[in-house]
Amino acid sequence: MTDTRFSSPEASIAYMKEVAVQRSGFSNWLGVEPVKVWEGESELFLAMRPDLTQHHGFAHGAIVGLMADNACAWAAASAVGDVVTGSYSINFLAPAIGAALRSKGTVIKAGKRQVVVRADVWSEDADGKAKLVACAQGTIIPTGKVELPR
Amino acid sequence: MTDTRFSSPEASIAYMKEVAVQRSGFSNWLGVEPVKVWEGESELFLAMRPDLTQHHGFAHGAIVGLMADNACAWAAASAVGDVVTGSYSINFLAPAIGAALRSKGTVIKAGKRQVVVRADVWSEDADGKAKLVACAQGTIIPTGKVELPR
Amino acid sequence: MTDTRFSSPEASIAYMKEVAVQRSGFSNWLGVEPVKVWEGESELFLAMRPDLTQHHGFAHGAIVGLMADNACAWAAASAVGDVVTGSYSINFLAPAIGAALRSKGTVIKAGKRQVVVRADVWSEDADGKAKLVACAQGTIIPTGKVELPR
Amino acid sequence: MTDTRFSSPEASIAYMKEVAVQRSGFSNWLGVEPVKVWEGESELFLAMRPDLTQHHGFAHGAIVGLMADNACAWAAASAVGDVVTGSYSINFLAPAIGAALRSKGTVIKAGKRQVVVRADVWSEDADGKAKLVACAQGTIIPTGKVELPR
Repeated sequence: MTDTRFSSPEASIAYMKEVAVQRSGFSNWLGVEPVKVWEGESELFLAMRPDLTQHHGFAHGAIVGLMADNACAWAAASAVGDVVTGSYSINFLAPAIGAALRSKGTVIKAGKRQVVVRADVWSEDADGKAKLVACAQGTIIPTGKVELPR
Repeated sequence: MTDTRFSSPEASIAYMKEVAVQRSGFSNWLGVEPVKVWEGESELFLAMRPDLTQHHGFAHGAIVGLMADNACAWAAASAVGDVVTGSYSINFLAPAIGAALRSKGTVIKAGKRQVVVRADVWSEDADGKAKLVACAQGTIIPTGKVELPR
Repeated sequence: MTDTRFSSPEASIAYMKEVAVQRSGFSNWLGVEPVKVWEGESELFLAMRPDLTQHHGFAHGAIVGLMADNACAWAAASAVGDVVTGSYSINFLAPAIGAALRSKGTVIKAGKRQVVVRADVWSEDADGKAKLVACAQGTIIPTGKVELPR
Repeated sequence: MTDTRFSSPEASIAYMKEVAVQRSGFSNWLGVEPVKVWEGESELFLAMRPDLTQHHGFAHGAIVGLMADNACAWAAASAVGDVVTGSYSINFLAPAIGAALRSKGTVIKAGKRQVVVRADVWSEDADGKAKLVACAQGTIIPTGKVELPR
């Protein structure tokens, strides 16, 4: 059976929606949208809403962290197949104020034992004006199995 | 006016419940419980449920990350007052399978400009048997204001 | 008295050579060369030699780490003045084999309390062919004093 | 042939001295001493001298970083055999002033694909009074070969 998961940009999006989002109770509740998961690069979008905030009304750090972690994991998955997150480091740069969050991940090096990825997270206002709110560096581990990225 | 927020172990728990949890849309939805926030140490508890899972039914990495980040921030807050998370590094050690998550944070050094904290996250089964699932090291920044930890 | 340390690209190199390298016993012994320290960007060069190696003859991890750390600190210094390293995370990507190491740092965000910087380290062979060997993300802290970056 | 490298606390020290220190040009020049490399724990000692300093006369950050990195790698090696450092995160807590540096590493989890280790670094004055100067968390990768830790 051919592995068609990442056979085209469109197939990869459909695959991520079906598996990484819909089968995950938390990602499904969040409604995080894969915009790009292709050839070592990823882009994710998440509309903000009140139940994703911390006490000042900004996006909660865990949500910003998820956007960075998933950007790393999904970029890696597009390069090497199924993965889990081994570790990541994240710096918070500014309060995540706005109507949405967007993150992008780029594979720096894809090895057999680990995939190193950098990711950035932006908050966007209603006009799509973006502000960088976090940057991260992650170590993603290929599982070698036909299963899903975390 | 005396700052009574962290005047006793009980007062600190009440304060964290009122401010860090109830006023945060996300923490409130999660239902994360402060067990200890006192003299540079923190303990948090979170009951697992289906909408906190990734696609295998384990606790989602973002939820594990939140437990680590909050353990760092709340331990720091108990030592220096109001804080925001500057950065953290987290290693995932095992799938977070079980009925609950528990995390503990310990301040390593509390300075004026940064508070360095270590945190661990465990998954617990229904009998309370614990397994270490993540460890983290965070840099927490005192705000110097009478406001809340992130 | 005007602060002329970073008044031009040339002045900044001269300043870094005099202060950050010559006054540091270790940097002086190493012979690390500032190539660029200007407007939030840095470039450093270090010729390899046998006493910088680990047991396989590659550049020692501490030397690779120094190239990343200094690239972060010097890029930050060019943006905000005197700094110390608060923390950094580094991923090692490949053995640092070759005739020299080169690193570059780029400020992601320069704030009053912290400057977040990314850095990459390459090994170069005798023909100048480069291979990425490490990537890092650092948090650099402005001292607010007229003293030197670490 | 039996692997006798880590067969006793004494054998492990002798092995580390012979291989990790003497065969490494840089470690040999440094004179870093393995004090303990046994059952997932490590301790290293390094006498300070002028050519290990930064411009204020403190131990250079790269030397502090080496003490943390090696503490992680050697602790991991004592648990799983030959390793390389995959990544680490380090926080600098105080200037490393004094007559010596000492570091200790403790394996948090030893897996087949990665070993997660925490390490602390202290500076010591001439009377052996210690001050914590850095803390780190590292991901060490078993090579599966009979070769040396980096």
